[in-house]
Amino acid sequence: MEHAWRASGSTLCVGLDPAVDRLPKHLLGKPSAILDFCTAIVDATADLVCAYKPQFAYFAAARAEEQLEELCAYVKRRYPDVVVLLDAKRGDIGPTAEQYAIEAFVRYGADAVTVNPYLGKDSVDPFLEHSDRGVFILCRTSNPGGADFQNLDVTGRPLFEVVADRVANDWNEGGQCGLVVGATYPEELARVRSIVGADLPLLIPGVGFQGGEPADASRFGGPSILASTSRAVLYASAGEDFADAARLVAIQTRAALIDHRRA
Amino acid sequence: MEHAWRASGSTLCVGLDPAVDRLPKHLLGKPSAILDFCTAIVDATADLVCAYKPQFAYFAAARAEEQLEELCAYVKRRYPDVVVLLDAKRGDIGPTAEQYAIEAFVRYGADAVTVNPYLGKDSVDPFLEHSDRGVFILCRTSNPGGADFQNLDVTGRPLFEVVADRVANDWNEGGQCGLVVGATYPEELARVRSIVGADLPLLIPGVGFQGGEPADASRFGGPSILASTSRAVLYASAGEDFADAARLVAIQTRAALIDHRRA
Repeated sequence: MEHAWRASGSTLCVGLDPAVDRLPKHLLGKPSAILDFCTAIVDATADLVCAYKPQFAYFAAARAEEQLEELCAYVKRRYPDVVVLLDAKRGDIGPTAEQYAIEAFVRYGADAVTVNPYLGKDSVDPFLEHSDRGVFILCRTSNPGGADFQNLDVTGRPLFEVVADRVANDWNEGGQCGLVVGATYPEELARVRSIVGADLPLLIPGVGFQGGEPADASRFGGPSILASTSRAVLYASAGEDFADAARLVAIQTRAALIDHRRA
Repeated sequence: MEHAWRASGSTLCVGLDPAVDRLPKHLLGKPSAILDFCTAIVDATADLVCAYKPQFAYFAAARAEEQLEELCAYVKRRYPDVVVLLDAKRGDIGPTAEQYAIEAFVRYGADAVTVNPYLGKDSVDPFLEHSDRGVFILCRTSNPGGADFQNLDVTGRPLFEVVADRVANDWNEGGQCGLVVGATYPEELARVRSIVGADLPLLIPGVGFQGGEPADASRFGGPSILASTSRAVLYASAGEDFADAARLVAIQTRAALIDHRRA
């Protein structure tokens, strides 16, 4: 992540969630509609971001794994300083996790992947064995239902704080770990940052459409963050000008992130 | 599940985890090797099982989503009484979970899917909206690392018991929910069964290779279970007789399950 932050001077991450029913009309019907949409967004924003975060589910629902492969390869080839973070929230027992690590890091060539902590350390190890890749572990997610279990009291503190502690102090020997904390819960973001120290990368989804403020992401997350916005950028316009409109929102969001880091 | 249990008279589930490096040599190199392997296992065991559980990761690592589609369709067409349970352990915020539900239930046509509870109820609702399908929620997984968080003390009881309670008493209005509890932890399986009552379906992976005993699955899980074994059946022989060998192990496992239900 260090290199991507330095090269871009940005903590903005754009999530690539190509919902087929929201693609601009002039792209619909083309076999490569999803890829064309995403690469246009990438070309319009690549100088503004530290990372792209393709969301696996949208490609899987549309039978578009090959387009996801091409998209990841496109970003790596054309913008080698930008991190590709595959948002797939994998979580399974060791031998199965090995397969998911191959999928994320070899098949899709992602620099990092999101992983669910519920199955524990031995479900994350197969990802960490790819020593040049990153693993972002879910901590406090951006949805209201995240509180159902993540905020349960575990001997005096909420579960998500236990996860943060364990990841920062036990799982991160190789310096490959990050955490996922929603922009929609700034107080909890601040708690996590205080637990893990200043340097652990925090992926902060939920900026923009979900209601998370870029100001809060920077103020409470500090400089070592990936502040991620998807729908606000992707669907800024439904017309042929979608890429220009996406760029404008990305510029505004990035500026808000930088202003609040300086403030 | 009721229908599948009645039609088969069996609680055996066979997990389809086709590791490319463990396929019989005579199949290797064929573009449809994974599909051919899995359909041969299915044809050799379909009269013995209530369900098949294809594990998504093995197909994804091998770029074999189309073979997974064909496999699911094959089972539904040829053995309509047998449940297809897609083991994908999905877990994401609402709009993304909608995409995963489309993938599992529409694209792959699965009857049920496994889901991770960490993101809470609103991450499971999009699956439950498919009212004729089932959702198996991870509770106590079969790996040792499962204890890292699942066994944490939440105001007097372990987290996995809280999950079991919440799913059985709050999430299961439509009668679509089941839980996943590893055969490798029979005491915890017994605890879960006592919490959720006799009828909630429990998927019990880890029978066989991982060390879980069919005897324990039946004794502590009762009759409303899917006792799942993968590697012990799939790789009973590495030769051309792999399907016959798989059938033999399936017969033995099923008999052990039935004996212990009667005992």
